[in-house]
Amino acid sequence: MTQDFRLKTNQMSTFDTIPKTRQDALTEVLLRLADDRLIHGHRLSEWTGHGPELEEDLALANVALDMIGHAASLYSYAAELEGKEDEDYYAYFRDDIEFKNIAMVEQLRGDFAFTIARQFLFSSYSYHLYNRLIEIMDDEQFKGMLQKHFKEIKYHLRHSREWVLRLGDGTEESHLRIQDAFDEIWMCTGEMFDQDETDRAAIEHHLFVDVSSFKKEWKKLVDETLEEATITVPDDDQYMYSGSREGRHTEHLGHLLAQMQFLRRSHPDAEWK
Amino acid sequence: MTQDFRLKTNQMSTFDTIPKTRQDALTEVLLRLADDRLIHGHRLSEWTGHGPELEEDLALANVALDMIGHAASLYSYAAELEGKEDEDYYAYFRDDIEFKNIAMVEQLRGDFAFTIARQFLFSSYSYHLYNRLIEIMDDEQFKGMLQKHFKEIKYHLRHSREWVLRLGDGTEESHLRIQDAFDEIWMCTGEMFDQDETDRAAIEHHLFVDVSSFKKEWKKLVDETLEEATITVPDDDQYMYSGSREGRHTEHLGHLLAQMQFLRRSHPDAEWK
Repeated sequence: MTQDFRLKTNQMSTFDTIPKTRQDALTEVLLRLADDRLIHGHRLSEWTGHGPELEEDLALANVALDMIGHAASLYSYAAELEGKEDEDYYAYFRDDIEFKNIAMVEQLRGDFAFTIARQFLFSSYSYHLYNRLIEIMDDEQFKGMLQKHFKEIKYHLRHSREWVLRLGDGTEESHLRIQDAFDEIWMCTGEMFDQDETDRAAIEHHLFVDVSSFKKEWKKLVDETLEEATITVPDDDQYMYSGSREGRHTEHLGHLLAQMQFLRRSHPDAEWK
Repeated sequence: MTQDFRLKTNQMSTFDTIPKTRQDALTEVLLRLADDRLIHGHRLSEWTGHGPELEEDLALANVALDMIGHAASLYSYAAELEGKEDEDYYAYFRDDIEFKNIAMVEQLRGDFAFTIARQFLFSSYSYHLYNRLIEIMDDEQFKGMLQKHFKEIKYHLRHSREWVLRLGDGTEESHLRIQDAFDEIWMCTGEMFDQDETDRAAIEHHLFVDVSSFKKEWKKLVDETLEEATITVPDDDQYMYSGSREGRHTEHLGHLLAQMQFLRRSHPDAEWK
């Protein structure tokens, strides 16, 4: 049964096509944003029941739910545009090479410091990205979603930024762990600012922004936060991971998808309606 | 480090004491309600990222968060009454024999049908219990919590009842699975209506209710729902599990706690403040 779906999804793969129409570009932007959020949300949800304190357990679970919720709305709109009956197709029936998320969000859960470092880097990026997208977005339905999600992204940024400060300027152990976390994840920050033909097509249609336009602001926010937290900012002149948006993922995504998709693929009517 | 906490929590064990004062009775009622919800919420949270569809994944995760949230408020009030600095003590530093939850909620996650059958039986019980508790509750702070949580319990009941109907009256497979689920969990329903000296002490102080007073209504709701779903109501004349409130738990609770408490016990300052 699984095999059937693999064939089906491979045939429907769109990862290597440059969007030719406005609608194709719109769908691509929706899926890129959604995939980042679904995978990040899934990693965060792995904390539920394992957080360092009950309150934080609930906070991380809430951020995870927000992100998965954002992904679900974005998929739903993409499904509408592509005439697919079910937005779950995107989450459950695509293979790893079709996922367009950046490598940062698929990395293993790690320890609490790693989780916080990643959430801070991603949320500060999302904050600037959504801020710009709302300004230029030429599609009203999409714009409405962005505005709604932006409120939650501001909370995610505040939440993770406060933890970066607490961990960085905390005990010796917490400082070492958060410093290690930033050092380790840094090679995944380059991808947030990579641009390809898909982006350029979407920019032309006023459906996406030139991400380099807010890189300085993002870097300033990160540098200032890390400095306040007494964390050394990692060197940008290091090897940077790239290629995820084109389907070249780390091994972690495959394992995550196997876990996430197993039930639905083995029982296509797993809800037993 | 873990060993130290085990000793400490055993010394502080209260599972075998009958509450002598009004405040003791109040604390016991808070902890019994909270433990049921923490453990059930934890089991539900195991679905996040593994649900049969994205929307249902979010729904189950939301119910899990509600339940863990209810537990956190109840623990927080118990901590206030017992002069404990940190309500996390109850979740992370008690051993299994000190947990007062019923066996139903600690059983393994099972398949989706099992999850739904359990949530329906527990939520229909909670609905009637909270309804009565709000009427008689002699403690204003506790009453306020119950009223707040009751709104969410009504949603949990509706959510799980709708799924019982869909699965029971669905495909052949879904029908078999939900029938099996009710047959399997039924031996855990007896405990919801067991009463002991702690209950009787709390009832005297108008802090708890005689649960037998709503058993008929609960049974009617369950019987009618199962009948509508074409599910055979299991026989009440079977062996019923008992003793959880006194700390006699099934092996599953120990494993769940090991997982949930590990991080906090191995790093008492795991939040690296």
